[in-house]
Amino acid sequence: MFDAAIIGTGPAGLSAAINLKMRGKEVIWFGSGDFSGKVEKSEKIGNYPGLGLVSGRELNEKFRAHAAQMGLEITDRIVTNISRLKDRYMLLANNEMYEARALLLATGVVPGRGFDGEKELVGMGVSYCATCDGMFYRGKTIAVFCGAKRYEPEVTYLAEMAAKVYLYAGYPGCEVEAPNVEQLKSPIRQVQGGMRLTGITLANGTEVPVDGLFCLRSAIAPTTLLPGLTLEGPHIVVDRHMATNLPGCFAAGDCTGAPYQIAKAVGEGNIAAHSILDYLAEQGREA
Amino acid sequence: MFDAAIIGTGPAGLSAAINLKMRGKEVIWFGSGDFSGKVEKSEKIGNYPGLGLVSGRELNEKFRAHAAQMGLEITDRIVTNISRLKDRYMLLANNEMYEARALLLATGVVPGRGFDGEKELVGMGVSYCATCDGMFYRGKTIAVFCGAKRYEPEVTYLAEMAAKVYLYAGYPGCEVEAPNVEQLKSPIRQVQGGMRLTGITLANGTEVPVDGLFCLRSAIAPTTLLPGLTLEGPHIVVDRHMATNLPGCFAAGDCTGAPYQIAKAVGEGNIAAHSILDYLAEQGREA
Repeated sequence: MFDAAIIGTGPAGLSAAINLKMRGKEVIWFGSGDFSGKVEKSEKIGNYPGLGLVSGRELNEKFRAHAAQMGLEITDRIVTNISRLKDRYMLLANNEMYEARALLLATGVVPGRGFDGEKELVGMGVSYCATCDGMFYRGKTIAVFCGAKRYEPEVTYLAEMAAKVYLYAGYPGCEVEAPNVEQLKSPIRQVQGGMRLTGITLANGTEVPVDGLFCLRSAIAPTTLLPGLTLEGPHIVVDRHMATNLPGCFAAGDCTGAPYQIAKAVGEGNIAAHSILDYLAEQGREA
Repeated sequence: MFDAAIIGTGPAGLSAAINLKMRGKEVIWFGSGDFSGKVEKSEKIGNYPGLGLVSGRELNEKFRAHAAQMGLEITDRIVTNISRLKDRYMLLANNEMYEARALLLATGVVPGRGFDGEKELVGMGVSYCATCDGMFYRGKTIAVFCGAKRYEPEVTYLAEMAAKVYLYAGYPGCEVEAPNVEQLKSPIRQVQGGMRLTGITLANGTEVPVDGLFCLRSAIAPTTLLPGLTLEGPHIVVDRHMATNLPGCFAAGDCTGAPYQIAKAVGEGNIAAHSILDYLAEQGREA
């Protein structure tokens, strides 16, 4: 049995894995060996303190190097189900069972079904995070898919940055109003571009040239993974110690809510690791 | 009036300053231009994701370089008092007043709550600022607690004013030399006085009558700085958005509690900056 299982190799998972390893814990760490695709595809990151202005690719490379330096190993398998027993969690990944005393969910916020051509242009004009990338579109023309009412403040923020916003809301009664926002009458169907996004095509065949596309969508519910987890919208509810409602289960990073930021994720991963250390120590005393 | 005032140039303050600057806010940032002394003195840091194993000095240098790259300016003055008006905070630093709509406390953790009896005599013999109050002790006898090497010029200044200075340095290798400066062999334990300070008591029980006590520390106890703030022990109580109990006042880093970690501090500084952006936007709508 492992001391802890970490799901997710983004900044939150990495931060937790480093700290647990340094403290001599036996950890199994599930996720992509490429680390965070969201980090990798970020054009520019300027707000991770200590690194100045870096590309997402550079930062992800530094993350991978740090993990390698620490001797951290990644189990590149997809956890599809978790069940909680009295004193442990059972994780099912690629038809194998793993046991761990404590669990950290650092699963990120996963965009749902995408538009045709969207996936290919992530980081090259397609973004999932207004507060992360909005500033790079100052004075430009962008399209925004707003998947839920809770993203309307992000649309307003983008409208403050961009010269022109073509907005399609995936729900009725969208209330974003700004002189430079034009609501599209037809849904976005396809994303155009080669090396970089050049425009979008609507369901009615209209082509709209834009410099960027923001897809603001909800996440896949983590309760699919672990029934019984308390959510608020798409996010896992945690306290200041990153504890969820389930004993021994912690969460960190984008899956706990906005701001979707690398610095926030590493901070939460660090806190979660320390909470797991406390939890394991307490379990040890009770046993 | 500034959009925000940040107190503290450690990792939390830096993280917040970067984000607010990127979003075009007018920020005044108080603290030491040397950044965090605590980071600087760390021998090795292995759990700041992306940097591998670095010395505290190296990491602090990276922090300074990042701030310089962003064009962030530091106001190297010591904030000694803050008052809250309806829609703003008034900060007193080196006898000058500054106004800001929002406030971030990133002041680090104060070891204990100062000396016994210190808080009760602030402004009645206890001072935190040599250049502010030194002139009132011309020809008098004072005690000085010097918490860090960077305050030594202030001690020298006080020695030029006062007839006699009893000095206790909270670090090895204090190099203040003046004929009227006597280094105490035992730490200061207690502050004596009723309506006004009359003397200090050392840990070894010695009583030293003085007219004033200067406490030169990088961190001032939060409630001394800003009355009305809710604390839990020595820590400022915050919610998941880093909001304190006072509207428009946020806190981040070690001052909000353990774990005392750089990654946690940058994460909280990031969250606080985003909360300040939300707060300013809301204030703008109400105005």
